[in-house]
Amino acid sequence: MATPAPTRQRRRGHDPESVLSIAVGVFNERGYDGTSMEDLARALGVTKSAIYHHVPGKEQLLARALDRALDGLFEMVADERAASGAAIERLERVVRQSVRILVDRQPYVTLLLRVRGNSRTERAALERRREFDAFISHLVGQAAAEGGIRADLDPALVTRLLFGTVNSITEWYHPSRGASADDLADALITMMFDGLRSNAA
Amino acid sequence: MATPAPTRQRRRGHDPESVLSIAVGVFNERGYDGTSMEDLARALGVTKSAIYHHVPGKEQLLARALDRALDGLFEMVADERAASGAAIERLERVVRQSVRILVDRQPYVTLLLRVRGNSRTERAALERRREFDAFISHLVGQAAAEGGIRADLDPALVTRLLFGTVNSITEWYHPSRGASADDLADALITMMFDGLRSNAA
Repeated sequence: MATPAPTRQRRRGHDPESVLSIAVGVFNERGYDGTSMEDLARALGVTKSAIYHHVPGKEQLLARALDRALDGLFEMVADERAASGAAIERLERVVRQSVRILVDRQPYVTLLLRVRGNSRTERAALERRREFDAFISHLVGQAAAEGGIRADLDPALVTRLLFGTVNSITEWYHPSRGASADDLADALITMMFDGLRSNAA
Repeated sequence: MATPAPTRQRRRGHDPESVLSIAVGVFNERGYDGTSMEDLARALGVTKSAIYHHVPGKEQLLARALDRALDGLFEMVADERAASGAAIERLERVVRQSVRILVDRQPYVTLLLRVRGNSRTERAALERRREFDAFISHLVGQAAAEGGIRADLDPALVTRLLFGTVNSITEWYHPSRGASADDLADALITMMFDGLRSNAA
């Protein structure tokens, strides 16, 4: 049985997945707007003309990278829309799952959080982010209405603070040092839902 | 008694304070590295040669802007180093005061949080940020040792999550819409210290 010869792409290790992953690294380091096709070619170790064999353009890579972050979040939203139970418990599950997605897809989520709406692709991603935010906001509102959230807390501020905290993880979390994704999710949820103050004190 | 004639600077409304404030706005919008002296001149409405009457250079403006953020934080640190009482109470006061400083000096703190160490000025600012972080980290450790923080929470993660949350405010807080600085500080502290979950639920 003949083994297919490795394609030039495979020999160079540039399947679409590794192209995307290397490109996202460059976008996060130099900024998307500050990245040229030449920068991408250099990072991939190919000539500037060869890069067009791998990708039609920068914006297509951006779109795929942003989808990578957003698709994870929207799969979870679909699951949770079908779920029942107290809203505060659903909210806890959504926060835990968001931390896991963020850790699992950290470079993609980091890129998503920096999008400012400078192109059609960026505006489409912002639109999906707003839809996600609206889902969280609705869930927090429900939890407040059910009495699951302290009455003295404004649900709008709770939403902002919760996801401000979750998103801040992209700024400082390094999977190689210390806490696992589960440790991180546990600590974040204990702190945000039950507070850091010891009841004994 | 003769009234001094207004200087050209004053007539144009370009005292050092307004130059700094306009420059920081431009740095935050375009990125410090992406800002030229020409961009600053345009924002100030002066010619490129006139800008050198206002400032010797970009990096000097950056240094003053970063000091504006850091000096506020270090005045608080000096006060708190002299304070006594339970560490958990001191931590709460430090978090509240940090939120106030951040809201009060939002553009300056936003700029500080984006510094990556690309110049001597940036490295000096990062050094002071690390000193501030070490102070917070020590205070959290003390609060944990005194039993003021839940025993199941890792103090290192508590430190990161607390200031991840505080710093996230620069991303979404707009003083003109809704919550005042005090409302914001109250909500953040209630949530982080006592948890968002209603004890009734």
